[in-house]
Amino acid sequence: MLEAWRKSRRVVHAHCDLPCGVYDPAQARIEAESVKAIQEKYQASEDPAFRTRALAIKEERAELVKHHLWVLWTDYFKPEHLEKYPQLHELFWNATKEAGLAKKSEDPAQGQKLLDLIDEIAKIFWETKAA
Amino acid sequence: MLEAWRKSRRVVHAHCDLPCGVYDPAQARIEAESVKAIQEKYQASEDPAFRTRALAIKEERAELVKHHLWVLWTDYFKPEHLEKYPQLHELFWNATKEAGLAKKSEDPAQGQKLLDLIDEIAKIFWETKAA
Amino acid sequence: MLEAWRKSRRVVHAHCDLPCGVYDPAQARIEAESVKAIQEKYQASEDPAFRTRALAIKEERAELVKHHLWVLWTDYFKPEHLEKYPQLHELFWNATKEAGLAKKSEDPAQGQKLLDLIDEIAKIFWETKAA
Amino acid sequence: MLEAWRKSRRVVHAHCDLPCGVYDPAQARIEAESVKAIQEKYQASEDPAFRTRALAIKEERAELVKHHLWVLWTDYFKPEHLEKYPQLHELFWNATKEAGLAKKSEDPAQGQKLLDLIDEIAKIFWETKAA
Amino acid sequence: MLEAWRKSRRVVHAHCDLPCGVYDPAQARIEAESVKAIQEKYQASEDPAFRTRALAIKEERAELVKHHLWVLWTDYFKPEHLEKYPQLHELFWNATKEAGLAKKSEDPAQGQKLLDLIDEIAKIFWETKAA
Amino acid sequence: MLEAWRKSRRVVHAHCDLPCGVYDPAQARIEAESVKAIQEKYQASEDPAFRTRALAIKEERAELVKHHLWVLWTDYFKPEHLEKYPQLHELFWNATKEAGLAKKSEDPAQGQKLLDLIDEIAKIFWETKAA
Repeated sequence: MLEAWRKSRRVVHAHCDLPCGVYDPAQARIEAESVKAIQEKYQASEDPAFRTRALAIKEERAELVKHHLWVLWTDYFKPEHLEKYPQLHELFWNATKEAGLAKKSEDPAQGQKLLDLIDEIAKIFWETKAA
Repeated sequence: MLEAWRKSRRVVHAHCDLPCGVYDPAQARIEAESVKAIQEKYQASEDPAFRTRALAIKEERAELVKHHLWVLWTDYFKPEHLEKYPQLHELFWNATKEAGLAKKSEDPAQGQKLLDLIDEIAKIFWETKAA
Repeated sequence: MLEAWRKSRRVVHAHCDLPCGVYDPAQARIEAESVKAIQEKYQASEDPAFRTRALAIKEERAELVKHHLWVLWTDYFKPEHLEKYPQLHELFWNATKEAGLAKKSEDPAQGQKLLDLIDEIAKIFWETKAA
Repeated sequence: MLEAWRKSRRVVHAHCDLPCGVYDPAQARIEAESVKAIQEKYQASEDPAFRTRALAIKEERAELVKHHLWVLWTDYFKPEHLEKYPQLHELFWNATKEAGLAKKSEDPAQGQKLLDLIDEIAKIFWETKAA
Repeated sequence: MLEAWRKSRRVVHAHCDLPCGVYDPAQARIEAESVKAIQEKYQASEDPAFRTRALAIKEERAELVKHHLWVLWTDYFKPEHLEKYPQLHELFWNATKEAGLAKKSEDPAQGQKLLDLIDEIAKIFWETKAA
Repeated sequence: MLEAWRKSRRVVHAHCDLPCGVYDPAQARIEAESVKAIQEKYQASEDPAFRTRALAIKEERAELVKHHLWVLWTDYFKPEHLEKYPQLHELFWNATKEAGLAKKSEDPAQGQKLLDLIDEIAKIFWETKAA
């Protein structure tokens, strides 16, 4: 198990503006997983206090998704990546708009759409790392 | 590549206090990778402005490591885990103390010690998820 | 009055990771007092807008309780304290878990339990300071 | 004076994800003005403590520029705007990258470039508001 | 349009504690416009999820109004301003208290009162800049 | 010891905008104690990395002092208090300006002045609580 975990993480790279060079779409994905889980739990509960908390927390998690995606878009991706993946701008625009919609939606299907867009971004990200 | 990524991520689970049920030691690890990368870049540079920025950014990243570890310790782990892994408290105490030391140290070997402690935690985490 | 206040505060000590050496369980306690007061006001009101705000604010205050307790646990307490107070890890684990429960509970009795745990921690803290 | 101020502000519109519908490029511009002013003051001082503070504060201000620009890009601009201003994605990408560079640069000319890019964005923004 | 915008912004000045010397009441006003817009949208909707989000977001926006006003009061205004505008302390006290009330009120008329107080402050601010 | 601590804390009151009614000048004082301790440690060290960290952390702690004082001024104090303590506005203005100076000063005597101003505020605060 540990070996698998270590391997899956070996490609992890950085994300601050020093820059440290460490970036990882997992940051956006973990928050988006949380968003979708909250949407599911919201549907499964009828307790108004629980639902209020779910909405407030989802608001924050969706904001974090946006933030992590914006950082990848501006800081990690370079003109040479855009040349190879001309859809990058549009893809990030749609994904961050979808994260914004997640604040307004209590439907797990919406959360899944957000996850799918992040997966598209992650696929490109890891291809550029492997290149 | 994508398949591998998807698979490695399938086990990702939650982290807010709703609780959404999504937790992932990757959050702490990504920040700790950043800490170590900053320590390396600090050593490689003699530019005082760069070094000042490195210290300020490292301070924040190390704080994030602490935060993500504290969340795992308090929110994810349950008494039944402690029974099976009696070293949990001590391990988290040492790991968060090491993250505190990371603010004071510019030595990448220190950052590696922090990463190793996070890996120990991650190993236990994934074992409990697989159980 | 002032003399009393000054005296009660003379023992105040520090809390950042410089470290400045200033720590004080009052930081956690003030937030926990707020949590309990919010729970009481929540019970006393039937206005849905007020209740929504109470839940959102309680979420933040309880998070601050957790944060201040985590800082004490990791940064202030040292191995020699643990030797003398072997219950430290468990006590902090329970107290921060109770702070997490405070997000989910609108019952002032729950808030009181949180305050009691913080008082246990404060008792130990001030004993170590007096030592 | 007040009349002029009131008039200049009448066009102020919104920025949260409710959405409240209030957006204003002034938010990014004010922070960027601060960035450039810090770069100028950094050049004018030789006091190491002052310079350290300038670097740390500039880091935060530049981050706020990025944030405000990202919000405009994702939240305010719609597909119909992009059709009329096909340069939007590239413009925001360059402007947020320039804000990232502001963290690394102590040259006021760099700060001016950032301000110029924000002015280009503001020009488009106000044209779409007037449309 | 751009010319008008540029002109209206030429007088923009700074706000951090370096100090960079850049201050602008627009920061408080933009957040207050958002507060009032949220109050309007709250009244226009009967969707409980929307209303919950509106309350949570208004809480944050009103806090930002307070923060920006406090910064102006403490950091920008000097004793010589107070001599000329002896109402300054009372005006800021009332304005920040009104911002606090905005958290508790869903009435756009309340938001307008907050905007009016900010306009009074802005009028004085720009007069001191012109002096 | 515990009894003394409990007694000293019995008068603790609130601070959020619900309002929960809990306010305590200790919040500002703890951060100001940290500021002064950092100034002392800054003087005692010649390590440039340590000094850089001290400056960055002091910046944050001083900002927290300002924040806690602003909250007391706007949220806790009422017109009837002002009537009895007409110096309130001036006192808070000076104290928050002193907190701003703390960012720029590495002199513990400056930190002490800040502490003295907070003690003046605390004296009035506890008198109003006792009234």
